[in-house]
Amino acid sequence: MYRVYGDILSGNCYKVKLLMQFLEIEHQWEHVSVLAGDTHTAEFMRMNPSAKIPLLQIGESEFLSESNAILSYLAEGSRFLPGSGMPRAKVLQWQFFEQYSHEPYIAVARFIHKFLGLPKDREEEYHSKQAGGHKALAILEQQLMSSAYLVGDSPTIADISLYAYTHVADEGGFDLGRYPAIRQWKSNIESLPNYIAMKKENV
Amino acid sequence: MYRVYGDILSGNCYKVKLLMQFLEIEHQWEHVSVLAGDTHTAEFMRMNPSAKIPLLQIGESEFLSESNAILSYLAEGSRFLPGSGMPRAKVLQWQFFEQYSHEPYIAVARFIHKFLGLPKDREEEYHSKQAGGHKALAILEQQLMSSAYLVGDSPTIADISLYAYTHVADEGGFDLGRYPAIRQWKSNIESLPNYIAMKKENV
Repeated sequence: MYRVYGDILSGNCYKVKLLMQFLEIEHQWEHVSVLAGDTHTAEFMRMNPSAKIPLLQIGESEFLSESNAILSYLAEGSRFLPGSGMPRAKVLQWQFFEQYSHEPYIAVARFIHKFLGLPKDREEEYHSKQAGGHKALAILEQQLMSSAYLVGDSPTIADISLYAYTHVADEGGFDLGRYPAIRQWKSNIESLPNYIAMKKENV
Repeated sequence: MYRVYGDILSGNCYKVKLLMQFLEIEHQWEHVSVLAGDTHTAEFMRMNPSAKIPLLQIGESEFLSESNAILSYLAEGSRFLPGSGMPRAKVLQWQFFEQYSHEPYIAVARFIHKFLGLPKDREEEYHSKQAGGHKALAILEQQLMSSAYLVGDSPTIADISLYAYTHVADEGGFDLGRYPAIRQWKSNIESLPNYIAMKKENV
């Protein structure tokens, strides 16, 4: 039985929940609060020295961190991860894009706004995230104008990775109104069997 | 024949060069300068809308970006990438760690110092990178105290990914003197057959 340490309101954690739901993977969900300091206890840091969630526990003593590595591990052999070649490489390309060029802008702006309440001393940082976030959204939009999903015509873990923070980008001040292909893709994902929303009661 | 667009003095590009060298993969290397604006021409952005290097060209019209996705693609089936299960997942875990928790501190500090000459208006940013960089190095050190390489006892693309900027971390102001396991690992990598240094003349 898998155990997941996470907070479903964190996009990185929600990715794991959503894939497990799509694939009907049995698991226990252990709620961990970053703001309450749960990730910095000695006990948690023994499991994950990076002090981050999500964290996947496999059996008694194996742990895997980094949301996108967890997705790859869980999706192996399923319809959500192409088995080889360029389609598989493109899935990774989008996931690394997400962690470097999308999450640090959109997720961080959302965190400052939604979870910290946009305090005065982080206003400048918040506004500095807008340009990079829109740059990432424009690149997504360009891809989704030519394919229904990020890698071809069916959903992969690349879509789950990018969907997680994109679908709540408005909470970081990003208006999706100007990205019609992203909105169509968002709606396609939300229509997939077993989809669940990013809501506290869905863990 | 593969073509790589890159600058060997960029750690992200050097990763690709080093793996290709280890695996003796024939390729053409096309030098691209970020500082000269080469990644933002219309021609380059048609190949990579993210406007970044490295970029791998396969045949006439296929392109793959994101250094770590390129490594996975090229290493598939080789000794540098475990075929399945937890070892393969751990390789990805370290690569995502690299892009999110290591590169944005160590590579960016190095860029500001080495390539921009530490201008006054980026001094504060430069100094702000030190804590995060040392946090990443401490996590690396902890792993390398218990295994010769990041994932077990032989080198994988995870080591190539982390080596790229770690071995020149001093250029970003990070003293490796306090990390003996990292220094041993660095020396192990530099002793591997076909290793080449990060030098302009080595492309």
